[in-house]
Amino acid sequence: MGALGIHHLGVAVDDLDRAVETYERLFGAAVEHRAVVPAQGVEAASLRVGDSRVELLLALGPETPVGRFVARRGPGMHHVAFAVADLPAELARLRAAGAELIDDEPRAGLFGLQVAFVHPEATGGVLAELVGDGRG
Amino acid sequence: MGALGIHHLGVAVDDLDRAVETYERLFGAAVEHRAVVPAQGVEAASLRVGDSRVELLLALGPETPVGRFVARRGPGMHHVAFAVADLPAELARLRAAGAELIDDEPRAGLFGLQVAFVHPEATGGVLAELVGDGRG
Repeated sequence: MGALGIHHLGVAVDDLDRAVETYERLFGAAVEHRAVVPAQGVEAASLRVGDSRVELLLALGPETPVGRFVARRGPGMHHVAFAVADLPAELARLRAAGAELIDDEPRAGLFGLQVAFVHPEATGGVLAELVGDGRG
Repeated sequence: MGALGIHHLGVAVDDLDRAVETYERLFGAAVEHRAVVPAQGVEAASLRVGDSRVELLLALGPETPVGRFVARRGPGMHHVAFAVADLPAELARLRAAGAELIDDEPRAGLFGLQVAFVHPEATGGVLAELVGDGRG
């Protein structure tokens, strides 16, 4: 039990086209998905950076989670997502360990992923996302 | 050219023992290195989390880079490090691309790594570190 590794780093941006171009130019990133997801209040781009992944998040308005984050802290790192083999089992384990969860059950994330967020209170200030491997 | 992937996520903490225990308990992390590094103003622990790595950073005082970060923003994600095959060549490429660098040349980082930091101004608010693979 535990995480398989970092699935992606989530980064809040204020200009998605420019951020994509910057990651392509500086780090050799390549876009794998890009979509407007009104239900989650973002336009998002998932980028491969070598064998890792960075998710760029543009708020669709100020009253969205990412919009409020950017208003408070500016663009920058927003969350880290860890891949897990069995998301429901990991959530049960974290609940039993007393960790404060934002999502008690897996829910639909971006790009077809099954995800759940752990509260920054549980991790020392880091918003952590768990991503199921498809079985969860 | 470009990054090989995420080498580690750097996280500023205000209690290193507690943070290590939290990452072990929640994410199955395992400490691979831990050291006090006065020259860099931190006590640091490098943790394996599955096939990824998280670096926990405790400031040795308020007038250190991590101490000032925590005073301003609280504990949380501090930087992301990307592995590169040839650090001097990547730095030359980034300079040519007009990216603002904190370190123009590779320098000694934590745990024997050769590193250089890219200014958050160049990346849309993300402090990015490049880590050489040992040849750099």
